[in-house]
Amino acid sequence: MLIKNLIEDTHSFWTEGSGNFPEIVLSSRIRLARNLEEFLFNTSNKENSKGVLKTIKDATSNIESLEFFNLEIFNDLERKVLVEKHLISPGHGHNPQNKGILVNKEGSVSIMVNEEDHLRIQCFGSGLVLKDLWQKCTELDDLLEEKLNFAFNEKYGYLTTCPTNLGTGLRVSVMMHLPALVLTRQTNLILRQLSQVGVAVRGIFGEGTEALGNLFQISNQISLGQSEEEIVANVNLIVKRLVDQEQKAREYLLNKSGLLIEDKAKRAYGILTNAKIISSEEAFSLISDLRLGKTLGMVENLEIKPINELFLLCQPAYLQIISGKEMTAQERDIKRAEIFKEILQR
Amino acid sequence: MLIKNLIEDTHSFWTEGSGNFPEIVLSSRIRLARNLEEFLFNTSNKENSKGVLKTIKDATSNIESLEFFNLEIFNDLERKVLVEKHLISPGHGHNPQNKGILVNKEGSVSIMVNEEDHLRIQCFGSGLVLKDLWQKCTELDDLLEEKLNFAFNEKYGYLTTCPTNLGTGLRVSVMMHLPALVLTRQTNLILRQLSQVGVAVRGIFGEGTEALGNLFQISNQISLGQSEEEIVANVNLIVKRLVDQEQKAREYLLNKSGLLIEDKAKRAYGILTNAKIISSEEAFSLISDLRLGKTLGMVENLEIKPINELFLLCQPAYLQIISGKEMTAQERDIKRAEIFKEILQR
Repeated sequence: MLIKNLIEDTHSFWTEGSGNFPEIVLSSRIRLARNLEEFLFNTSNKENSKGVLKTIKDATSNIESLEFFNLEIFNDLERKVLVEKHLISPGHGHNPQNKGILVNKEGSVSIMVNEEDHLRIQCFGSGLVLKDLWQKCTELDDLLEEKLNFAFNEKYGYLTTCPTNLGTGLRVSVMMHLPALVLTRQTNLILRQLSQVGVAVRGIFGEGTEALGNLFQISNQISLGQSEEEIVANVNLIVKRLVDQEQKAREYLLNKSGLLIEDKAKRAYGILTNAKIISSEEAFSLISDLRLGKTLGMVENLEIKPINELFLLCQPAYLQIISGKEMTAQERDIKRAEIFKEILQR
Repeated sequence: MLIKNLIEDTHSFWTEGSGNFPEIVLSSRIRLARNLEEFLFNTSNKENSKGVLKTIKDATSNIESLEFFNLEIFNDLERKVLVEKHLISPGHGHNPQNKGILVNKEGSVSIMVNEEDHLRIQCFGSGLVLKDLWQKCTELDDLLEEKLNFAFNEKYGYLTTCPTNLGTGLRVSVMMHLPALVLTRQTNLILRQLSQVGVAVRGIFGEGTEALGNLFQISNQISLGQSEEEIVANVNLIVKRLVDQEQKAREYLLNKSGLLIEDKAKRAYGILTNAKIISSEEAFSLISDLRLGKTLGMVENLEIKPINELFLLCQPAYLQIISGKEMTAQERDIKRAEIFKEILQR
């Protein structure tokens, strides 16, 4: 994959609109945490990290499907784009020293090197495709294990820096659009119930972020005491239940207040295609309204893919990259409005 | 004029967009109050009113340019439309018994019979055209005086039911769109100053109504102690000063925050052409935003006339008339959105 595409491509695994339940599930992600036996588990130790980075780069150099990039080749803005595309975590992008990333051509695999763990293997897909992703991820894990010596303990499984990742080192997460559950005020209760069965719910940008645009990240909280397959199946089941609840809520809204939903969706379209200035926060909310209307068949001549792309384009760094310059908040709000118009009317 | 046109025509003197300063002045109106010497000045006395109505109907029957209608031939909704078109006052439309209206073909003359006074002669025009209207009104007054015996007193001039109309019986009023003065928070001060020089400021539907859509009716408060020409010249001068202030405020906004104004105007356009439900109150505000943007050259392919028509169509009775049925508030909000789309995209 060319660096340029990695940074500039507007398509992302989470804008495709394919896979299962694309009206509700934007994307699936599976992440494995792995560490090298022969190094300290401390990625903030400079010498140690240098060694980890070199070892991994060298060991993977003959894996054709993966390309290695040292994070230091990216400037601040470019690293922020990688975060916005969910290819790296905010923490990984923060300080690039002795950090790396291994990606495949399609952007559906991204391995962070020297994030909290030595390796964080991530596989992405559009829609609800956890089982496929698990298959892909485990193959990749096996391939890497042939070349690297992963720290493993009979009792605890794969050893990780943070104990919450111990065991399988597995994090399964799904990005869902749940506007109808929000509108029918069911989210609080449902999400509280989920936390009781070991499922974490976060906003679009991970821990501690708000559910902007009614987007929710659903993931397993612990990775110990269950097999990988059980964890994947468990999250899959819960997501399917949520899909079902969201579908029922959408049907309810359609029957009960279809016209209001249509009005909101069409107003959102009217504003998104006419405004001269749109803040990121407002954009998330408008796109959510438009997306709900679209999935209920109320918006003609518009596919779900460009709507998903708008979510990506809400974000500040990506906007600046495609504009080719750093911008103030107001300049971004203007550029955002300009690009939204283009995308929705193309 | 056909009754059908009188009621159903979407064009009104105040939607034309012609005359002087049409960007700021929607319409001008001159009204003369006259009473018949031989009758009581009490239009609520049934026998008396009957006599007044018959006398005026008979006396004007051979004036070719005017057509007489007994208000009782109109149903409630139709009378409300006449109010919304400003052809009759809300009070005149309230109870039609023994009340009448004389109108010309163009809808630019409307004489209310048995409103508060026996006759209220009204001449309308688009833009700031007070001098022309005064000419027209005075000719009409002379014509009527040849056929009717107006109560007149050497000391007080024309006698009227309410003492505030004594003397000339003249009310000169101008409907202005003053969004920039409102946005720059100058209206309160300016309007307070105006009241000190004998000028009244009201909302679009007369006394006690809010300035919906930033529309203001400017008129003289007293009609005694000045000649008609002085009153007309005085209001004309004050309106011109307001036009000047509004123009300066628009220039200021254009320079200071042109993009915000354009954003508001284009969002208004986006909502007005896409929404499924629009309340009357929201409509007034959106049309005001759109109109301001249009007059500042920010809205392409749209004339001022259809925008003015929208103001007329904000109103509940008119909407129901063109829909051919009585409607609930929600049905009206839906119909309004439908018609707005049609008008703006035709």
